[in-house]
Amino acid sequence: MKIESVDFFYLSMPEIEDIGDGSQDATLVRVRAGGLEGWGECEAAPLPTIAAYVCPMSHSACKPVRMSVEGMPLNEPNDIRRIMEKVHAHSFDLLQADHTLSGIDIALWDLLGKKLNEPVYSLLGYNSAYPKLPYASQLFGNTPEETYQKALHSQQSGFRAVKFGWGPIGKGSVEDDEDHFRAAREGLGKDAYLMVDIGTVWGDEVDTAQKRLSVLNEVNTYWLEEPFANMALRAYKKLSLSNPKVPLAAGEGCNNYPQAAAMLDYAGLNFIQIDTGRIGGITPAKKVAEEAHAKGIVYVNHTFTSHLALSASLQPYVGLKDHIISEYPVEPKQLAKDITTDKFLPDAEGYINLTEKAGLGVSINISDLKKYILDVEITVDGKNLYKTPSLD
Amino acid sequence: MKIESVDFFYLSMPEIEDIGDGSQDATLVRVRAGGLEGWGECEAAPLPTIAAYVCPMSHSACKPVRMSVEGMPLNEPNDIRRIMEKVHAHSFDLLQADHTLSGIDIALWDLLGKKLNEPVYSLLGYNSAYPKLPYASQLFGNTPEETYQKALHSQQSGFRAVKFGWGPIGKGSVEDDEDHFRAAREGLGKDAYLMVDIGTVWGDEVDTAQKRLSVLNEVNTYWLEEPFANMALRAYKKLSLSNPKVPLAAGEGCNNYPQAAAMLDYAGLNFIQIDTGRIGGITPAKKVAEEAHAKGIVYVNHTFTSHLALSASLQPYVGLKDHIISEYPVEPKQLAKDITTDKFLPDAEGYINLTEKAGLGVSINISDLKKYILDVEITVDGKNLYKTPSLD
Repeated sequence: MKIESVDFFYLSMPEIEDIGDGSQDATLVRVRAGGLEGWGECEAAPLPTIAAYVCPMSHSACKPVRMSVEGMPLNEPNDIRRIMEKVHAHSFDLLQADHTLSGIDIALWDLLGKKLNEPVYSLLGYNSAYPKLPYASQLFGNTPEETYQKALHSQQSGFRAVKFGWGPIGKGSVEDDEDHFRAAREGLGKDAYLMVDIGTVWGDEVDTAQKRLSVLNEVNTYWLEEPFANMALRAYKKLSLSNPKVPLAAGEGCNNYPQAAAMLDYAGLNFIQIDTGRIGGITPAKKVAEEAHAKGIVYVNHTFTSHLALSASLQPYVGLKDHIISEYPVEPKQLAKDITTDKFLPDAEGYINLTEKAGLGVSINISDLKKYILDVEITVDGKNLYKTPSLD
Repeated sequence: MKIESVDFFYLSMPEIEDIGDGSQDATLVRVRAGGLEGWGECEAAPLPTIAAYVCPMSHSACKPVRMSVEGMPLNEPNDIRRIMEKVHAHSFDLLQADHTLSGIDIALWDLLGKKLNEPVYSLLGYNSAYPKLPYASQLFGNTPEETYQKALHSQQSGFRAVKFGWGPIGKGSVEDDEDHFRAAREGLGKDAYLMVDIGTVWGDEVDTAQKRLSVLNEVNTYWLEEPFANMALRAYKKLSLSNPKVPLAAGEGCNNYPQAAAMLDYAGLNFIQIDTGRIGGITPAKKVAEEAHAKGIVYVNHTFTSHLALSASLQPYVGLKDHIISEYPVEPKQLAKDITTDKFLPDAEGYINLTEKAGLGVSINISDLKKYILDVEITVDGKNLYKTPSLD
């Protein structure tokens, strides 16, 4: 079959708050071919992502993503890899292209899985889908007391691993951060995994990070995530060699395989976190998972939004038995909840499992999504390049 | 003074050809403050670049670039650095943001230079602007004979350094490439510097590059540019250790300082090539120039378009006397020629020189540019977010 149509939808909550919650809007992608459809999601700013799909060509290496996708054959996994290579060859000067490609690549795997009646992980070469231990991923409270209450609630909800991130953390004094870290541990109890996410606010200031290592060690932090900007290799490496040792996690900002490979090679990481909605989709994410495994670095998904994104982000490493931790959104906005009818809920032992359903194994909740659609129209030189398509 | 307005203009030739010529369109930026205006240019796809400026906020780290720029104070160089930091803190999940920031940062330096009546390089801390040896930058011919004629023409035009790139190179057999390389050398004569630009077509295939090292060495190539994708650190490093030795150049694809630093640290480069229109402007480019100098790696500008872009790209390293080579566009499209009334023409010895004029030292050719403007209109949820402003 050949790719017949690729449609982008800009979905949004009625109000967008100035908080570190990426589930407030969504860039949904629908690909149709051979009477079937596949769905994907870009973890990306919707408007620039759509613009990168429809913009006019600037030159041979700055083409709209559209030109490398529409009409291409889709019959086997290598067809998807060829589309990725084509986008990279023809759009490498279009910075936003990788974010645009991400949702398309995910939708292509979903579609191919439906066509071949296989779950995506099978198409990727995995024989089994191993259970993953979800960690509850949430924002720090505005006060240590609020952080404590959130931690307590997560513990009472049965989560055995919890990550706190963003919010006030890293922006105030060492003591402020210490209070939050200790409150989180107190609320969780001593046995749960506790992860801490700094959200890159320290840029490349190694000293600032080093001042928090003692308390992070004291509260037995399972990992310290994104203390620094994506690709700040020197800062990561230096921190990884500091004492006391706190395991480092990063990678969600990588928008292609070479960046992730650089992080694996030079950043001194213990965990590499990949968002399939940013790195260019499932195809490059699988390559990173293989390589992390070979290097003894633990692969973890980065997911803060829907269960469509969650399924897409699990597929690349679900067949790697020992890479057991999985990010699991616990407080997404209603929009993110409404994207799929199916959900991956923790089982009695607290693990989540992919199913053997074809493709990504989730159904899109078309009727509930209509209310979130923002109508977009882009016109260049009198020619309409984009108008929000119908969800039906 | 405070930043009053930031305006983007999408300029285009009437026809865009599918060739490696980035001068076929332009993203021009005008910033106004205190009764003055500064101009900049993004080396970027215009539509996604504009979209990244005006899009709605997605979350706290995915804001439109606009929110970090408009109304900000602009009185001294550190104000420009603060704007860069603000954009990075508030838009790091908006991939296109660095390309958008690039033209703004350039325009801010131009504007501040005009306000303080200083050339930009003085504001950057340089005491002198040293002459640079321009190399004629052009595409390979479609045939070796055409490459030979172009080389001969460049030699007869007085250029002492010439770079050929893109076109058919690297896509055919080793013998095809050898014929082009030898034709280029034959046309130039034995004394001129000859550079070869592969335009990333070999991805990360080190073998493919290694097969061309003998002939590149035979024709005395001054550097081999972008054999691989941006950030393919392992492939670059491996090639840099191969025999015969051919000096490597890369970096034009870096869209922020950490990426360029990674290339300086791990790619085995002899030359780092930075496009101020992509890396986020003059501010991060200056940081890369300082660091390259400290590491003994030669800094070179990447410029294929206008003399506005050329001036912006020279400022970050014009005070580094020994970093003498400069990319100089010799066959840009008429649009790129029409952007400025001033031009930096080679002097009697073949060198180009920045002037002591305030800011970037170029005047924008408003009247000639109007015919290139593409009217753009972007509407989201019934609200107009962008409509091409008036050039006057």
